[in-house]
Amino acid sequence: MAKQKKQPRPKAETPKGFRDYFGAEVDERNVMLAEIARVYALYGFDPLETSGVETVEALGKFLPDVDRPNEGVFAWEEDDSGWVALRYDLTAPLARVAAQYRNDLPSPYRRYAMGPVWRNEKPGPGRFRQFYQCDADTVGSASPAADAEICAMLADTLEAVGIPRGDYLVRINNRKVLNGVLENVAASAPASSDGPPEQWDRLGEQEDAILRTIDKFDKVGEAGVRELLGAGRKDASGAFIDGVGLEHYQIEPIVLFLTSKGGNTKETLANLYQAVGSSEVGYQGIQELEQIAALLAAQGYGPDRIEVDPSVVRGLGYYTGPVFEAELTFEITDEKGRPRQFGSVAGGGRYDDLVKRFTGQAVPATGVSIGVDRLLAALRAKGRLSGETRGPVVVTVMDRDRMADYQAMVGELRSAGIRAEVYLGNPKNFGNQLKYADKRASPVAVIQGGDEAERGVVQLKDLVLGAKLAEGLTREEWAEQPAQVEVSRADLVAEVQKMLDRD
Amino acid sequence: MAKQKKQPRPKAETPKGFRDYFGAEVDERNVMLAEIARVYALYGFDPLETSGVETVEALGKFLPDVDRPNEGVFAWEEDDSGWVALRYDLTAPLARVAAQYRNDLPSPYRRYAMGPVWRNEKPGPGRFRQFYQCDADTVGSASPAADAEICAMLADTLEAVGIPRGDYLVRINNRKVLNGVLENVAASAPASSDGPPEQWDRLGEQEDAILRTIDKFDKVGEAGVRELLGAGRKDASGAFIDGVGLEHYQIEPIVLFLTSKGGNTKETLANLYQAVGSSEVGYQGIQELEQIAALLAAQGYGPDRIEVDPSVVRGLGYYTGPVFEAELTFEITDEKGRPRQFGSVAGGGRYDDLVKRFTGQAVPATGVSIGVDRLLAALRAKGRLSGETRGPVVVTVMDRDRMADYQAMVGELRSAGIRAEVYLGNPKNFGNQLKYADKRASPVAVIQGGDEAERGVVQLKDLVLGAKLAEGLTREEWAEQPAQVEVSRADLVAEVQKMLDRD
Repeated sequence: MAKQKKQPRPKAETPKGFRDYFGAEVDERNVMLAEIARVYALYGFDPLETSGVETVEALGKFLPDVDRPNEGVFAWEEDDSGWVALRYDLTAPLARVAAQYRNDLPSPYRRYAMGPVWRNEKPGPGRFRQFYQCDADTVGSASPAADAEICAMLADTLEAVGIPRGDYLVRINNRKVLNGVLENVAASAPASSDGPPEQWDRLGEQEDAILRTIDKFDKVGEAGVRELLGAGRKDASGAFIDGVGLEHYQIEPIVLFLTSKGGNTKETLANLYQAVGSSEVGYQGIQELEQIAALLAAQGYGPDRIEVDPSVVRGLGYYTGPVFEAELTFEITDEKGRPRQFGSVAGGGRYDDLVKRFTGQAVPATGVSIGVDRLLAALRAKGRLSGETRGPVVVTVMDRDRMADYQAMVGELRSAGIRAEVYLGNPKNFGNQLKYADKRASPVAVIQGGDEAERGVVQLKDLVLGAKLAEGLTREEWAEQPAQVEVSRADLVAEVQKMLDRD
Repeated sequence: MAKQKKQPRPKAETPKGFRDYFGAEVDERNVMLAEIARVYALYGFDPLETSGVETVEALGKFLPDVDRPNEGVFAWEEDDSGWVALRYDLTAPLARVAAQYRNDLPSPYRRYAMGPVWRNEKPGPGRFRQFYQCDADTVGSASPAADAEICAMLADTLEAVGIPRGDYLVRINNRKVLNGVLENVAASAPASSDGPPEQWDRLGEQEDAILRTIDKFDKVGEAGVRELLGAGRKDASGAFIDGVGLEHYQIEPIVLFLTSKGGNTKETLANLYQAVGSSEVGYQGIQELEQIAALLAAQGYGPDRIEVDPSVVRGLGYYTGPVFEAELTFEITDEKGRPRQFGSVAGGGRYDDLVKRFTGQAVPATGVSIGVDRLLAALRAKGRLSGETRGPVVVTVMDRDRMADYQAMVGELRSAGIRAEVYLGNPKNFGNQLKYADKRASPVAVIQGGDEAERGVVQLKDLVLGAKLAEGLTREEWAEQPAQVEVSRADLVAEVQKMLDRD
């Protein structure tokens, strides 16, 4: 470090909304990401790693789902590069890459990406300004088979990381069906003579209001949506929310769409055909859902894993075709002690305008993004991750001058693949060494004083068992499983391994 | 994406000095990092992952080795956090963490960290503004055993990632020895009556000039350093560089230090004792080197892997005790076709002021940083990495309506652990499908038209062999190893596996 100037000491803190990850948190995420990458690669997806910094121009000035230019990202100006920003997702960089290398990449281009993204948003409990995403996308295929593949891969991935079948459900909807519903609504709109005849069946501004209302279906349910699409509604606080002002016969197709899920795919699709009426795009959307469902069924992905569900509304505003959402269906206990479903851990869909911003040419694309932290939290809730790693075997230092002997011990242990370290603090106070081993979650402490060295033995202290003893193992049980044993120095590795196997 | 406004199309480019990594580049780095992490963990080091963004206050406003405040980092101001910046290394965040969690972390704290860092410097060929670092540090141990451990771990790590013994050398020097040399120089300075007597033996400003000159030893050699420490020197361009102005008897200890490497450690240390004269700190530094060398020798790390070498000057200005450097000793051919040694891939040392900035308390620390990209380049130069991954098996689409059949094929292949994908582009032009398979580096293409489906067979096209054929395999060889075979549909997986094993 350079020389210190006289100035107040800096605060040892992360910036607001950022955090550090230690030990098992890092390991568990890496194991999970590696497993996800394995499944993605098996499906033919290739890794892509872009840098954290992009030009604001290339990123676009908006977040998905959020319509506020320039907000939500960390951006700054550089003399030689203009405005740059930290990426807020992995899709915007993919769009840039797909445009930049369009002549070199295979088409279709299947790629996956995993890494941190940054959001300049108000942090909250469990919401941080840097977090991991893990995406897979297929760029350049308009085929519903590409959507089906993403859904199948998502199901396989969830099972591969440890979510058993029955504990998750991938649900599929289609923006085109919603567009069809809107066309149906518009076609039944009261005739107007305000504009030219070809615009009489357009919804105009009402369309945005309808989309916003549909987005509330999860929260307010069918009755609430009916009120909000019609005359309006009193919310929980008693305030009155203005309605969209549709006639009841216009509201019907929208509600039919949102509640069209039947006992099986066939029933659901039949309900959807009703909701879209004679709309061409609606018909096309249902056909796509039918193809996706048929492909998945042929591959053995039944409705216990993946199903068509028109009540999935998240992302319908953002995507242009099929949308997917993976939900975990098991119950957890929330912070207030109430049972609730774990909820969504991944989402995605088709967005055919990806590259168009750059090249003017529409390129079909479909993909999925896994919420890495959500999925890790789910695995912890299921007891699949301990949040703890076994620490290293700690070789204590009884005699400062015999450091080479202790180093030889850890060397032998490591050669056998056992994590091991010599205590490197001040060895004077032996109690501190055992406290250290405890803090390290060490399973075994190795002790060799001068006397033991002369006799060619070492003491092994089973710290896992020691902890159990401290928790009330009886004296008899203790006698059977001694927490500290003396073994021959020559048997060090074998005896330590025995203790590790026992724990 | 939100609606498009009328505006010129954005450029599909990374900001200056940033780049993208595709396929094998990402895989190979991940494999190497995982292997490094495995060795670090075996030595008892725990992972730590801090975020990319730190407060400028916590980071400190300077790079290691670089004395220009505020330059060299990407920094910007946030309303709620003040000035923040992207981390420029992994040591500054470690200092912040060691101070912030000082009551919770074990002491000593062994941690490793791997991830991108950002430097706002002029990019050049092969020099990017975002790159990976991979560090291991021990915080809280003043013992030379901690330094020895870092060196041993570095040697093990290099071998684990594929640098064979004999192709690398970890060299150790000590800043304290240099301090001792400087004391020796000062003690022999001509008596001065400019200041109070107790300052007569201080070098004052000359010390910085001496350090800068020593840093040039690698470039200008012994004769050059002699001139630069003395009256001055003409450089290659003919320009005259002013010298430090030392007397010849003052220059002697410095040159003795730089050239003190003997035929073995004992000789080297003996030379160093001469260079430091009666300096206490110099004596202490040599004692540390002696202890480190003894510990390493006891663990079997001989001078073929790790040696004391006082000509290592990189980082001597930055560190406060032992410094380490890992060099790859094999020759490569540089861009001008000349053979040269590959050079340094890792460096580190002891820096005891790490946490002091935050807490006022000095905490001893020692560590090493591996240059991930340099090491990857070395492995490529040694032919250990191909830079290519085998692509997936591509199942072509002869009949759009039989997509489910093709999906079933890839499903079976994946279940056997074979990367496989269905062609998802427009299947109309079969030639395009084979071109695609080629671009994907696919080893095998699977083909099944309606006729083959009826007969219960598939065609397998060996694309690796096909490429060899195109390169001039004779017709007879071709007949022996047909590049395309018809096999029973039931044998698909087994026959593909056979082809993969053959390639």
